[in-house]
Amino acid sequence: MGLKLFELCGTDPTRVFSPFCWRARMALALKGLPFESIPWRFTETERLAFAQHDKVPVLVDGERAVPDSWAIAQYLDEAYPETLSLLRGNPQPYLFVAAWNDTVVQAGVVRFIVSDIPPLLGEEKAYFVESREKRFGTTLAAVTADRDEKLPAFRASLQPMRHALRGRAFLGGDTPDYADCIVFGTFMWARVVSPLALLEADDPIHAWRERMLDLAGGMARNAPCC
Amino acid sequence: MGLKLFELCGTDPTRVFSPFCWRARMALALKGLPFESIPWRFTETERLAFAQHDKVPVLVDGERAVPDSWAIAQYLDEAYPETLSLLRGNPQPYLFVAAWNDTVVQAGVVRFIVSDIPPLLGEEKAYFVESREKRFGTTLAAVTADRDEKLPAFRASLQPMRHALRGRAFLGGDTPDYADCIVFGTFMWARVVSPLALLEADDPIHAWRERMLDLAGGMARNAPCC
Repeated sequence: MGLKLFELCGTDPTRVFSPFCWRARMALALKGLPFESIPWRFTETERLAFAQHDKVPVLVDGERAVPDSWAIAQYLDEAYPETLSLLRGNPQPYLFVAAWNDTVVQAGVVRFIVSDIPPLLGEEKAYFVESREKRFGTTLAAVTADRDEKLPAFRASLQPMRHALRGRAFLGGDTPDYADCIVFGTFMWARVVSPLALLEADDPIHAWRERMLDLAGGMARNAPCC
Repeated sequence: MGLKLFELCGTDPTRVFSPFCWRARMALALKGLPFESIPWRFTETERLAFAQHDKVPVLVDGERAVPDSWAIAQYLDEAYPETLSLLRGNPQPYLFVAAWNDTVVQAGVVRFIVSDIPPLLGEEKAYFVESREKRFGTTLAAVTADRDEKLPAFRASLQPMRHALRGRAFLGGDTPDYADCIVFGTFMWARVVSPLALLEADDPIHAWRERMLDLAGGMARNAPCC
């Protein structure tokens, strides 16, 4: 049987670039659970009908299908309690970390990298460009046109993360937990699709990201990226 | 014996106005632990020498002195495990909530209310004004002069909190936990010293604050304020 993870990619099936898929990927890696990656493209909604869902990630564990990265984290802790605990028995404060990441980090990052995504896509490119241009109300090139000027404000918005990492290797403390997976997923999304340097080399968040890249035998560091 | 809490006040010993003291106050209230409030003023550092500390809050539990709001929360969970758990066995993600609160909420709020504090103080007023003017590099009146114009940006910066409260009564979920104490402490600080309406009435954070004010028999709602 074994675990299977439906993950977002484009023409290269090994190049996984959804922040939510990376949360699930890192969660599996931190728990030391091997899994088979099943490539999935935007618009292949019918392939997820078995899970009664239309987005990735979807985890398949034997007969069980678990859609949604948050539900996957909770499921993995329940189903594999003998491995590293992602949510340490109390999911509530991790919802705050997710809320911060989604509204600050992820909402910021998309405006730096969204125009780098279409070249990675095949026939689903038209869907992606049209839906995102509708969301932003302008062309993707226009969204990211002034990204160099916007970098300082974005980096400043990450101050809570720097503060939280003072004296700690990971948001989880000495060992990473699901808080690290949440924020790292967003940074991996950027790393896989865009050559832009979001972080300065002397930023404590950069050092944290390096530690995350090295986890699980360098799983994230060795992933195809820009 | 009973619990004693050294708390910051000015000329009115019942008007407690430190955000960190309010974290400790709410923590005790959530746990249902009665305590005696010991008024303490800025500059009375020698009165805290027994705790080898120079700031409030300091909790005294029999022979034990516990300074620092974070240490107090950890101590209370350890010493009173039969009461509501503040950190639910895993302090790590609460450090992220504290980091966000300190760098966004508290760093924002001080610039709206710092000029409202001196009228509450007695002979320690000179110390307070001088030290804060040095910190801000200008007069306290100048710090808050444009506060009405800065309110929209401050309210926008609270978006992660709104997101985290979607579908939940408290950051802790159905019941409050220490995440709620952390953020509420900052809002109580503002409520006690300033008449400024930081939140709009239709803000979900306003509704959350109302719920917090009602906890423990309205302990916070009934506290002296502006």
